[in-house]
Amino acid sequence: MSTALLTDQYELTMLRAALENGTADRRSVFEVFARQLPPGRRYGVVAGIGRLLDSLESFVFDDETLAFLTSRGVVDAPTAEWLSKYRFGGDIWGYAEGDCYFPGSPVLVVEGTFAEAVVLETLLLSVLNHDSAIASAAARMVRAAGSRPLIEMGSRRTHELAAVAAARAAYIAGFSTTSNLEAGRLYGVPTAGTAAHSFILLHDNERHAFQSQLATLGADTTLLVDTYDTERAVRRAVELAGPSLGAVRIDSGDLTVVAAQVRELLDSLGAEQTRIVVTGDLDEYSIAALAAAPVDAYGVGTSVVTGSGAPTAGLVYKLVARGDSADPDAPMRSVAKRSAEKQGRGGHKSVVRHIDGSGVAQAEIVTTGESVPGPHDRTPLVPLVREGGVVGREPLAVARARHERALGELPPTALQLSRGDPAIPTEFVDTHVCP
Amino acid sequence: MSTALLTDQYELTMLRAALENGTADRRSVFEVFARQLPPGRRYGVVAGIGRLLDSLESFVFDDETLAFLTSRGVVDAPTAEWLSKYRFGGDIWGYAEGDCYFPGSPVLVVEGTFAEAVVLETLLLSVLNHDSAIASAAARMVRAAGSRPLIEMGSRRTHELAAVAAARAAYIAGFSTTSNLEAGRLYGVPTAGTAAHSFILLHDNERHAFQSQLATLGADTTLLVDTYDTERAVRRAVELAGPSLGAVRIDSGDLTVVAAQVRELLDSLGAEQTRIVVTGDLDEYSIAALAAAPVDAYGVGTSVVTGSGAPTAGLVYKLVARGDSADPDAPMRSVAKRSAEKQGRGGHKSVVRHIDGSGVAQAEIVTTGESVPGPHDRTPLVPLVREGGVVGREPLAVARARHERALGELPPTALQLSRGDPAIPTEFVDTHVCP
Repeated sequence: MSTALLTDQYELTMLRAALENGTADRRSVFEVFARQLPPGRRYGVVAGIGRLLDSLESFVFDDETLAFLTSRGVVDAPTAEWLSKYRFGGDIWGYAEGDCYFPGSPVLVVEGTFAEAVVLETLLLSVLNHDSAIASAAARMVRAAGSRPLIEMGSRRTHELAAVAAARAAYIAGFSTTSNLEAGRLYGVPTAGTAAHSFILLHDNERHAFQSQLATLGADTTLLVDTYDTERAVRRAVELAGPSLGAVRIDSGDLTVVAAQVRELLDSLGAEQTRIVVTGDLDEYSIAALAAAPVDAYGVGTSVVTGSGAPTAGLVYKLVARGDSADPDAPMRSVAKRSAEKQGRGGHKSVVRHIDGSGVAQAEIVTTGESVPGPHDRTPLVPLVREGGVVGREPLAVARARHERALGELPPTALQLSRGDPAIPTEFVDTHVCP
Repeated sequence: MSTALLTDQYELTMLRAALENGTADRRSVFEVFARQLPPGRRYGVVAGIGRLLDSLESFVFDDETLAFLTSRGVVDAPTAEWLSKYRFGGDIWGYAEGDCYFPGSPVLVVEGTFAEAVVLETLLLSVLNHDSAIASAAARMVRAAGSRPLIEMGSRRTHELAAVAAARAAYIAGFSTTSNLEAGRLYGVPTAGTAAHSFILLHDNERHAFQSQLATLGADTTLLVDTYDTERAVRRAVELAGPSLGAVRIDSGDLTVVAAQVRELLDSLGAEQTRIVVTGDLDEYSIAALAAAPVDAYGVGTSVVTGSGAPTAGLVYKLVARGDSADPDAPMRSVAKRSAEKQGRGGHKSVVRHIDGSGVAQAEIVTTGESVPGPHDRTPLVPLVREGGVVGREPLAVARARHERALGELPPTALQLSRGDPAIPTEFVDTHVCP
């Protein structure tokens, strides 16, 4: 499917005017950044880069699309002609997936003609704002869970295709598995799942339901024990499955209390290896509150797929530099909005994440001049697209491993769940608030 | 594209166990309802029914899908064989799109065999939870805006395909237009849009940018006036376009103050017909706060596509009745979860919205017995699918008109933005907490 119409109309009306007056070919640099993190968050997590590269390759205008745009009067014939040949031919750099970002971090830098770069605004932001919001929330849950695995199971709480992207983003941030089958097929995310209350209620009684599930899925399955009476269900589960029962799931009640009761009961029945999975409107705070409870795994739904209070990452796409003509070698000038509260910082930027001798990040240094990394520093911006060709693809596992490293290098306060300032300051060097 | 894998894994493992033990063919009734509305909300708005019917027809398992499921061990050969022939053959009733709902309203009722109905859970909930969350938030913004039009422009703040559904849902709830082109193509939602700050910054100066836009889009266009100095931009805009300039857009600053200044200036320049469009992180509260300001239209982004604090509608899909065998004529028994705080109400329900003689809704009456509507009452549940065939399709305009009527029949307090109880109580008659 073409992604071309996943676009705000004004991208194409701007294109039309720019084509008509000759500014369309001016070299331009657009930058994606967040003015701030969601309130109290200490870091953001970049996700969606892989999806962005896929969707960029599908950004083509076929005849049906052009007929629609022309019939609606959105574009005129010359603009339709231009769009029919559209292929992004510029360069894109970006923060690699899984890395952390901070206010003002240039998460994506797009360089090309104004025309070829402006039309990508909506699509690039949609992908990055959604996926990064999920990954940023998921990362906090993963930290709160410590070494215990997290299952992403929020598909039913968000748009059916956003769910697939959410499962991918949560996996990058350290979730172990997802319930979403399409995320398994499309991205190779490990999938999990056993049974719901409806399965218990379908049967004549709980015993029959457990027997049925055990017969089909084996003793290593997870039995849902809170449909009627949790204590009786746990006794029945161990009676039927034996002490090698894989796990029991608790989806309601005061999980701290119930988990302790169930653990004690399981142990007394000899099922010391049987795990306890808890689910039911968990978020990073309730996960943290269960740290001392005998819980073996968490299933998280609503809160992870809705970004736990911050469903969008607040990333924007701004023109930061442009040439005066189509000459790619002419020097570009920095530009930015000037009025009122949303002042911008112009210029094509580079970034150094300054790391001290003990491996702890100290600052995000953003500059329009030359950046000289110190001995332990690293440069988060990597090439993603060169002259229109994708060069930044990588396996999901690489992003997942990068995320763990990137979070590990932040100062320890970064990992607190409480509200606070960004974990490291963003320092702007040689950049200036425009005129 | 098949929607079959937009599904939680446990739907298929439950199916597998039910097929193996013979309960798969039991007649079953599943119900979609919300335990409560988001905190302080007085009504919910149903959206997504049309999309749900489309996605139901695409819910088929092709060979590639089955190969994936089998290779991952999610299903065995008999289950794969069953899925290869899957077509939903049961009945679905639902609240028509645009109608209001309340806690416990049976928004969707699905009747069929357990097997054919359980596998739809994730997809149906994803569509309804997303679209209804957006419509419910959008409806409040529409009321806050009074007679002034609203432009949906949040595509960049949400997943790229969720954005298309969001534009559709907002239109049902009364938004006038969307910036999202795919929503225009796919659903016929009217589209709008002119230019961004990048277009101004692309040009040598603001004058050139305005000239370029006016030359291409005509004097009726909307010029963005807050890139540098708003007052100077407004003067320049009228100077270049003349008093027939369509509109100016303000995207930053204290909108109440700036709108008044701009109105006064426009009037003094003879541009009394030029409209003022305001944008910039608006939600229902800031829209209401601008009621006395000389604003002609609102552009709303983040808050509408993220449900303004409630990004998911909290709808659940629960088995409420089942037969003991595959005999469709045997009486079904009511079932519901019993333990802890999430007790359910079993039974196949019907609903009457009780309306008094002056046309004002008084109660949502939910019953498992026979419902006898009074002279002014209406019955929100309508047939959507009969024996697998879709019967509930309707044009978007019908849903949009229904929404306006449904909201208009609620008590006046329903339309307050402040936090409150549901606008009408839900009364359960002849239903019981199970068993």
